[in-house]
Amino acid sequence: MSQNTAAAVEFARGNQQRFVDELKALLRIPSISTLPEHAGDVRRAAEFIASELRRIGLENVSLVETATGGHPLVYGDWLHKENAPTVLCYGHYDVQPAEPLDEWTTPPFEPAERNGNLYARGAVDDKGQMWMHVKALEALFEANQGTLPVNIRVLIEGEEEVGGEGIAWFVREHGGRLRSDLALISDTEMFAPDLPTLCVGLRGMIYTEIEVRGAAIDLHSGMYGGAAPNPFVALAHIITKLKDEDGRILIPGFYDKVESPSAEELKAWKALPFDEEHYRRTEVGSPELTGEAGYSVLERTWARPTLDVHGMPGGFIGAGAKTVIPAKAVAKISMRLVPKQVPAEVFEQYKSFVASIAPRGVDVSVRLIHSAEPIVVSTDNQFVKAAVEAMHEVFATDTVFVRGGGSIPIVGDFIRELSLPTLMMGFGLPDDNLHAPNEKFHLANFHRGIESLIRFLSAAGA
Amino acid sequence: MSQNTAAAVEFARGNQQRFVDELKALLRIPSISTLPEHAGDVRRAAEFIASELRRIGLENVSLVETATGGHPLVYGDWLHKENAPTVLCYGHYDVQPAEPLDEWTTPPFEPAERNGNLYARGAVDDKGQMWMHVKALEALFEANQGTLPVNIRVLIEGEEEVGGEGIAWFVREHGGRLRSDLALISDTEMFAPDLPTLCVGLRGMIYTEIEVRGAAIDLHSGMYGGAAPNPFVALAHIITKLKDEDGRILIPGFYDKVESPSAEELKAWKALPFDEEHYRRTEVGSPELTGEAGYSVLERTWARPTLDVHGMPGGFIGAGAKTVIPAKAVAKISMRLVPKQVPAEVFEQYKSFVASIAPRGVDVSVRLIHSAEPIVVSTDNQFVKAAVEAMHEVFATDTVFVRGGGSIPIVGDFIRELSLPTLMMGFGLPDDNLHAPNEKFHLANFHRGIESLIRFLSAAGA
Repeated sequence: MSQNTAAAVEFARGNQQRFVDELKALLRIPSISTLPEHAGDVRRAAEFIASELRRIGLENVSLVETATGGHPLVYGDWLHKENAPTVLCYGHYDVQPAEPLDEWTTPPFEPAERNGNLYARGAVDDKGQMWMHVKALEALFEANQGTLPVNIRVLIEGEEEVGGEGIAWFVREHGGRLRSDLALISDTEMFAPDLPTLCVGLRGMIYTEIEVRGAAIDLHSGMYGGAAPNPFVALAHIITKLKDEDGRILIPGFYDKVESPSAEELKAWKALPFDEEHYRRTEVGSPELTGEAGYSVLERTWARPTLDVHGMPGGFIGAGAKTVIPAKAVAKISMRLVPKQVPAEVFEQYKSFVASIAPRGVDVSVRLIHSAEPIVVSTDNQFVKAAVEAMHEVFATDTVFVRGGGSIPIVGDFIRELSLPTLMMGFGLPDDNLHAPNEKFHLANFHRGIESLIRFLSAAGA
Repeated sequence: MSQNTAAAVEFARGNQQRFVDELKALLRIPSISTLPEHAGDVRRAAEFIASELRRIGLENVSLVETATGGHPLVYGDWLHKENAPTVLCYGHYDVQPAEPLDEWTTPPFEPAERNGNLYARGAVDDKGQMWMHVKALEALFEANQGTLPVNIRVLIEGEEEVGGEGIAWFVREHGGRLRSDLALISDTEMFAPDLPTLCVGLRGMIYTEIEVRGAAIDLHSGMYGGAAPNPFVALAHIITKLKDEDGRILIPGFYDKVESPSAEELKAWKALPFDEEHYRRTEVGSPELTGEAGYSVLERTWARPTLDVHGMPGGFIGAGAKTVIPAKAVAKISMRLVPKQVPAEVFEQYKSFVASIAPRGVDVSVRLIHSAEPIVVSTDNQFVKAAVEAMHEVFATDTVFVRGGGSIPIVGDFIRELSLPTLMMGFGLPDDNLHAPNEKFHLANFHRGIESLIRFLSAAGA
């Protein structure tokens, strides 16, 4: 370890509490990108970050408005290190909605420390992990007399949780301004506590709504029950025709392009410390796990496509009884896609199939809300080697290579538009409650993440 | 027509605007019985009515608290007419929730007159129709020097829309205090505009919730999709096993006790002015009508049981996308029952069947919210004859006998506990939007209803 790297690590260790306090201030801003009433908060979070990027020494810091009219990107760079690679640090400052609020032990936007964890919406996804990048850069600037060991671009978006339309537009239209050698992303998790992990594959997705309209207005089920179509019953029939009770998706052609993981990858997965019964009990908590027969949980969640229903707005959802036959009902349905499936093609298969199974008496329409491509990234480059070494120094153990079940849409854009290898080096834990009540970030991992990033960026520039 | 009856009719005609203004004041009180936050409003509506009953001349007026702890009953009587029957006037002052609010042309609790109609939640169901009784009694008191042509008990409940537990308790435990010769109810509709109608049968119901629990907490569908059970998908499979696409209910034994209408009744229904295509277009507005094959719309809505889903709370129902696998989801499901089906028996059949079809991976529980017995009432008595004559005087046409698809739970209690014949003499119209946005009462029917009631009560005492 060079003297500067050691100094940066020391600086980070000496400022741990301040780093956490700053993160708490950011977490207090409810930057929920999907809710229009929080648009002002989303922008406030962007400004908070831009201000910090300027303070630590990045240049050209600005909020970038996109042609798609959504939330701004935060950009900053430092590009004065000759003969060194350029690393594009990506993160996102928007968060998921916090509902159901009554299941949070402490309020989602009032960060609270308990048992070594920091609880708040966005703690780990992704404000906390994005903040590790910022703090690693701050430490490196401090230890290198206002310079960095590598060239850096920082690009942080505010629409990751709603499909990332703005950043996709920016990468597509202005990709030349992002010329780099590597995209570095901390928005994934470690396979197990203390086990450094690189994520080398992500599922894609399409998120859709099926809207079913029956009667022209809401009707009384006493007067009209037996004559008026019921949109929820129609949706139930549609859903059961989309996915059978064994978890198999019934859309014709859906599995045609699915590519299986290599035998080598499957073998490595089998060697991971993973117990399905322990996972069921401690992470899922359901009476049984479900999904396609013949595949392990890791295969089902990393390498098999799925279909889920997220909510069914419409009708009466208050306490007690209302005997309404609603005029319309909606099912929010997403599918996770795996390598070689093409989101646009799957959406067309799905849309045609839904049209073909629409029950009589109702009008059915299908909308695409957003989509993301499935991806796999190469592990055969110098950056992966440097990352593995950096994390070995911090965790004193070898890195495992896993895939993620979720989507980070921008990774596909980086690969397709910028031919950029991507390093997904995340420090979340499997029980961090992403997108759920009581989201948290294990603070030890926040600090170890910063150290790992300091060491990795130093090595990448050496 | 006696001189006093003529004077009462004249009084009512001279006070039409005042009667409507009073009704508007009552409609401004959002007495939504199912929503705990409106409990104060429900009581305010009860006090409003009690105050008016006292003013017009009824005695022993009081709010009756029930042992079931719900909303109070309003009671009043006048029992000084010897050798005359006693009529128990029943109505309800509670209303359904007003959602979806954005579909109302004018706000639900700001009564508005348009095109001869009065628009407000409760306009016809049942505040407006209950108010006809009060105003007919006021006119009769006025025209009879502070007396009435019959003995009257008034009993108005505040829990009709939530199952009527309180009044059921009162009738069961204190039925002796309600000794009468007839129950008079105006909570039904006319078969067509200008066509006086008596309702002689009602469907019963059970209103239930099925709750499905999968994971212990809400999970991210990216990370857990393919392993964690989805409660909405489970509910979809349950619902499709409860009711097939042809509208047939699949619960074993469900149809066993269903009694068909008599050949005579079916013949009378065929003679009613009813066009299924016109009904589809003007009342339902769906692309097609649905329901069991082989039965007419009137049979399906009056004499066949049904199953409807009213709402599916759980998960994410906001705008946009949230990729949650919810820990639980609920389906609000009711069944309409027809004569000889027994609500408690059907609930047990249903509950056992749901348990037997529960998908793997989830816990399923079934709750009964409330129930009502199906009923048919006799048409062979003096009161029916008097009602037909009274309405002939007002509408100049013969009364038709119909059934209602909805439930008025108290009718079953009156029959079973008090052996009381019931006259269901309602003045709503089929397009009055009961339980839906833009509920209305045709004001001409409000006034003709009052006249019909004046004439009927005069005749009943003669």
